[in-house]
Amino acid sequence: MKGPLLLINFKTYLEATGKKSIELAKIAEEVSKEKGVNIAVAPQFSDLKSVSEAVSIPVYAQHVDPIRPGAFTGHVLAEAVKSSGAEGGLVNHSEKRLKISEIEEVLEICRGTELVSIVCGNTVGVSSAVAALNPNMIAIEPPELIGTGIAVSKAQPELITRTVARIREVNKSVKILCGAGVSNAEDVAKAIQLGTEGVLVASSVVKSRESRRLLAEMADALLSKPDSSLVGSKRRITA
Amino acid sequence: MKGPLLLINFKTYLEATGKKSIELAKIAEEVSKEKGVNIAVAPQFSDLKSVSEAVSIPVYAQHVDPIRPGAFTGHVLAEAVKSSGAEGGLVNHSEKRLKISEIEEVLEICRGTELVSIVCGNTVGVSSAVAALNPNMIAIEPPELIGTGIAVSKAQPELITRTVARIREVNKSVKILCGAGVSNAEDVAKAIQLGTEGVLVASSVVKSRESRRLLAEMADALLSKPDSSLVGSKRRITA
Amino acid sequence: MKGPLLLINFKTYLEATGKKSIELAKIAEEVSKEKGVNIAVAPQFSDLKSVSEAVSIPVYAQHVDPIRPGAFTGHVLAEAVKSSGAEGGLVNHSEKRLKISEIEEVLEICRGTELVSIVCGNTVGVSSAVAALNPNMIAIEPPELIGTGIAVSKAQPELITRTVARIREVNKSVKILCGAGVSNAEDVAKAIQLGTEGVLVASSVVKSRESRRLLAEMADALLSKPDSSLVGSKRRITA
Amino acid sequence: MKGPLLLINFKTYLEATGKKSIELAKIAEEVSKEKGVNIAVAPQFSDLKSVSEAVSIPVYAQHVDPIRPGAFTGHVLAEAVKSSGAEGGLVNHSEKRLKISEIEEVLEICRGTELVSIVCGNTVGVSSAVAALNPNMIAIEPPELIGTGIAVSKAQPELITRTVARIREVNKSVKILCGAGVSNAEDVAKAIQLGTEGVLVASSVVKSRESRRLLAEMADALLSKPDSSLVGSKRRITA
Repeated sequence: MKGPLLLINFKTYLEATGKKSIELAKIAEEVSKEKGVNIAVAPQFSDLKSVSEAVSIPVYAQHVDPIRPGAFTGHVLAEAVKSSGAEGGLVNHSEKRLKISEIEEVLEICRGTELVSIVCGNTVGVSSAVAALNPNMIAIEPPELIGTGIAVSKAQPELITRTVARIREVNKSVKILCGAGVSNAEDVAKAIQLGTEGVLVASSVVKSRESRRLLAEMADALLSKPDSSLVGSKRRITA
Repeated sequence: MKGPLLLINFKTYLEATGKKSIELAKIAEEVSKEKGVNIAVAPQFSDLKSVSEAVSIPVYAQHVDPIRPGAFTGHVLAEAVKSSGAEGGLVNHSEKRLKISEIEEVLEICRGTELVSIVCGNTVGVSSAVAALNPNMIAIEPPELIGTGIAVSKAQPELITRTVARIREVNKSVKILCGAGVSNAEDVAKAIQLGTEGVLVASSVVKSRESRRLLAEMADALLSKPDSSLVGSKRRITA
Repeated sequence: MKGPLLLINFKTYLEATGKKSIELAKIAEEVSKEKGVNIAVAPQFSDLKSVSEAVSIPVYAQHVDPIRPGAFTGHVLAEAVKSSGAEGGLVNHSEKRLKISEIEEVLEICRGTELVSIVCGNTVGVSSAVAALNPNMIAIEPPELIGTGIAVSKAQPELITRTVARIREVNKSVKILCGAGVSNAEDVAKAIQLGTEGVLVASSVVKSRESRRLLAEMADALLSKPDSSLVGSKRRITA
Repeated sequence: MKGPLLLINFKTYLEATGKKSIELAKIAEEVSKEKGVNIAVAPQFSDLKSVSEAVSIPVYAQHVDPIRPGAFTGHVLAEAVKSSGAEGGLVNHSEKRLKISEIEEVLEICRGTELVSIVCGNTVGVSSAVAALNPNMIAIEPPELIGTGIAVSKAQPELITRTVARIREVNKSVKILCGAGVSNAEDVAKAIQLGTEGVLVASSVVKSRESRRLLAEMADALLSKPDSSLVGSKRRITA
């Protein structure tokens, strides 16, 4: 996937469960095509297949378990996620934390099943630690901001630039997303200016009465440029 | 649901993932109709909806999380299970154990969303303990026999009769299934003779090259009568 | 142990860590002897041995792991708890919940090492469920009241009487303690009147500047009589 | 601490519980003084204080929980570990795995309470990931070799050199220990030759009938030199 990404996490909101998950995914698809911007959706497990069939934008599982095919009742098998039509999965979301040895195991399994992995990290330290495990993307999401409507990019812009810099020391190629408190177009623009390559959004979009308009504004903002005075020099080195 | 039940747990076997989950569910449906016997299936989360749409026999989730709608990324929401068309869910399977306070929470959630609950218990003690929480069904599954091909009903028949008796002391109405090592018709007949009202099967059916024939034999055996010399007197008291 | 019990849970409060755990245990011992009332203490693991050596009243571990001697780095071994001089252990405290199969395993291990078990339960259902596993004592502790200073016995007296009644249906002999929000003598008296045989206390005593006076008052209240209009008839049946 | 380290993990072996934990710690202390080599011991929580009082060599907790003082019944508080006389703690042992966000939290807590942290890692990836969190030491311990009597240094020498190299890319100063399958002096020598700065041992020493002689031999081997043909060049770069 080239260019910045906007991923919508449906969580376990009723507003994005069952039929409503398909409706929201279709809105996301329309905005994606109209704006020429990468938008992906992460519905619940039981909606993965019907959403994948309904839209052509990328679909992600919200979690993948560190297991292989076999006797693991109630677990999320990478092969099942893949066969449902999903492109990848979130790993270690703040609401579904894993042990570090499990994260590595899941990443190996994702590589084996050709699933794109997005590992979430809550702090500078954790984000740079998981960078060493070489996932496809890392989403920075300080838990204190999740669901607050306060964008990490505004509340603590230096946290973003510092985390990006630390991740780049360990891993030059991983795609970095900004994943907490992003609730409007301004937050998205700010996240991009600070050097990340996309955002995770959830309640702001899922619970909005005007999801389409909000997504369209966010999509425009996603095409902002990184602010070279903040991140340019670092990115040149790491590119 | 009246009459004995045969529930097929698909676990995370590749032989019952994606398209193959639908194929196996259709075989189960055919045998169920042909024999006039209750057969249900428990596919993976991502297959719940397509299996539910493909067959008219009951479909169960392999697990339900003790959560309400909201911000629970990567969890299994009862409402999502219900909206996928499933009738109920397994709870506390030996491969997905819960804390006891969580079991109670899930059971309350299942009642609120009208999902039928099957709680698994590994010992006489645990089985009678969960009986106090009033689930719809209890599956007795000593973990030492799971996947061994050794039926609990043959290896330790007195374990079944003793567990049934202990459960009845606490709960007169819960349906009791026998859930470990059941791999052929003889095991099914034995389980019924010992006083249980159905069985959980998994690898024996999922991995069989002749699933249809095996299921048909098991379905016949499911219509066996309880052995009154073993369980008759107790059942009369508890009825 | 005959007669009602007052157990002080030291939790991980600094006011009851290290040397201060011994000081508080000595105060408890003095009040116990002076008033002729059972008082026990539950210090942190690393204080178990020095507290046990310093006082003659019963000492409890705050948790015991469901493990046997062997390779379980970082776990709490029943034999180690016993060898430190402790009399028993708390199991399934609301701050250290266990899976139900683990509770049964710990109880079996406690019986084998002659440790007295106190299993905590958060609801009527869970409390009656663990009663089926036959621990030595059950502590009823609705989590919504823990640390609030609101005594369960005052806020929801019928919750206590109902839970006691339900436990007695399953288990006639287990000792029942009241374990949430007990912060003064009046709460203790109320708990006894409602049919429990003791209380768990924590922050109210540990953080009090007048622990000795507070404990002395609670000790007096512990000698209250059950209110026969509330619980008398039930107790006669179950005795 | 200067120079290589031999840490004895007592696990939950009965041979190193209670009084026997003190006996073994005293043997370790004698060998440490006699040979002029760093030896440390990690007894169970309930033995921390009595072992710390009995010997002058460093004592480590087997685990520290990611919690602050307060209401955390049954948890291991850093301040309690410190007040028992321990110098530090193991974190994320293969038998007590943590979530990555918890590891970072524990490390921050250890720094705040001046406890030395030894984080265990099971693979090249995990070891380099935790290196980014800046613990005092890292112990490499492939779980497949733990307790097998097969030394990782012999079975997979390149695993050691590769892990050391990868850790050094992320962290130049962390002390690296070799922690699996080390059962005799030869294994210790090999581990040092491959570029690690110490070893974790457990059952081989704890269960030996000749612990003193075995420890003395291991102590001599600990003074081996790194093999410059294997690790010299890398270490020069990273120094």
